[in-house]
Amino acid sequence: MNPIPHPMQTPHVLPSDTVSARLRALGMSLPPPLRVPDGVILPFAPVHVIGTRVLISGHGPQHADGSMAGGVGRVGDELDEAQGYAAARATTLSMLASLERSLGSLDRIKRWVRVFGMVRCAPGFQRLPNVINGCSDLLLALWGPELGQHARSAVGMAELPFGIPVEIEAEAELH
Amino acid sequence: MNPIPHPMQTPHVLPSDTVSARLRALGMSLPPPLRVPDGVILPFAPVHVIGTRVLISGHGPQHADGSMAGGVGRVGDELDEAQGYAAARATTLSMLASLERSLGSLDRIKRWVRVFGMVRCAPGFQRLPNVINGCSDLLLALWGPELGQHARSAVGMAELPFGIPVEIEAEAELH
Amino acid sequence: MNPIPHPMQTPHVLPSDTVSARLRALGMSLPPPLRVPDGVILPFAPVHVIGTRVLISGHGPQHADGSMAGGVGRVGDELDEAQGYAAARATTLSMLASLERSLGSLDRIKRWVRVFGMVRCAPGFQRLPNVINGCSDLLLALWGPELGQHARSAVGMAELPFGIPVEIEAEAELH
Repeated sequence: MNPIPHPMQTPHVLPSDTVSARLRALGMSLPPPLRVPDGVILPFAPVHVIGTRVLISGHGPQHADGSMAGGVGRVGDELDEAQGYAAARATTLSMLASLERSLGSLDRIKRWVRVFGMVRCAPGFQRLPNVINGCSDLLLALWGPELGQHARSAVGMAELPFGIPVEIEAEAELH
Repeated sequence: MNPIPHPMQTPHVLPSDTVSARLRALGMSLPPPLRVPDGVILPFAPVHVIGTRVLISGHGPQHADGSMAGGVGRVGDELDEAQGYAAARATTLSMLASLERSLGSLDRIKRWVRVFGMVRCAPGFQRLPNVINGCSDLLLALWGPELGQHARSAVGMAELPFGIPVEIEAEAELH
Repeated sequence: MNPIPHPMQTPHVLPSDTVSARLRALGMSLPPPLRVPDGVILPFAPVHVIGTRVLISGHGPQHADGSMAGGVGRVGDELDEAQGYAAARATTLSMLASLERSLGSLDRIKRWVRVFGMVRCAPGFQRLPNVINGCSDLLLALWGPELGQHARSAVGMAELPFGIPVEIEAEAELH
């Protein structure tokens, strides 16, 4: 998962013309399509467009080769809060990669609607909002404080697919 | 819950005119209204229509008499993956029954939007997507690969009402 | 959290002109803005308006001073079902307070759409619907059986932020 440093304060709205350019300016790149584990069939769409709504299926962090970055343990146990934050950011990059492949360009997204952040956490780990900030901070940095704004929940799950530490489901609005 | 065989490959889009006819062709039937357990009040609507959106409350698998098929243990523990898949399929039949009662006909559904699949699972059970495929495969079989398509998450919960092994919340679009 | 008595039968649609007046008639008041715990940043909006949709971020019960009423244990363990019901009602008051601050008036809400109720529960506690009725009963009392109606799920989580016993995410429709 290549833990990313843990700023908690990603600079907002870089002065680039496109979301892709802003991503590059932040030194980030999008992962390739998901390499699905053996024996697993995912018959649904990663991204589903209904009119101007775009619904984003649950995503998790990916390794650079496209495989799921699971089996790394729970946040609050094998992973600390900063690593959880990095996993939420990597999960967001996976969502953005699916959106770019599905929509052609991230600039078709007008604004964000909803983020539902799920953390595979150790019993007693309750700083779940700080983990899902890895998603919120990136959306706000890329789309700005108004269009990147979103309703959000950050909650602790018993299990997530493939042992990923973070899964995020989301919705955005298209132009 | 009458475990159903575990195909993982439900045949797609049967050439019948109505969703009900396709259900019958698959040898499936819809359960009666939920028999709510003693001491439980469910004051909300199983299906809620807002314009062309139809929001489907969390449903679970039902027995043939309408009662909740709970108290059967956790997936990955007392239930194996195939039984989890069968429970997700039975949960989908429960959803379709509520939709038919509320809408009058399943043919009022234009297409599917979102499936949020929750599994009451044993610690370490992570093949959650294969369980919720019991829902996705049936929607895709009945509505076809385009209109049955949906955004989806499949996650592991600490507990579900009445000890049901699967609960699914969903959204579809009406004509 | 000041446990509230546990009626399970809140009187429906009081004959007052405004939602605020009905709240007062029920003897309830709305909490002040959330006092966020030290070391936690919540960069997202409690309430997010998209056209006529209003999406409500995950909320929890608040103390009278605005702080989160967490650290009180799990429902089915330190808290019983009636205390869980009171926590779901207090969570709803927190949501309504955020809505009033964001929208100016609760009367801008035309009707309710969706309630996603999450309970931090002890293993084996499965009367989750009765807990989240603390939310549904209040919405139905304030908006009546038609406009207060909603699709709902009530599920058990491994952990919730700050150890709150209930978290609710919701959606309503604006006039």
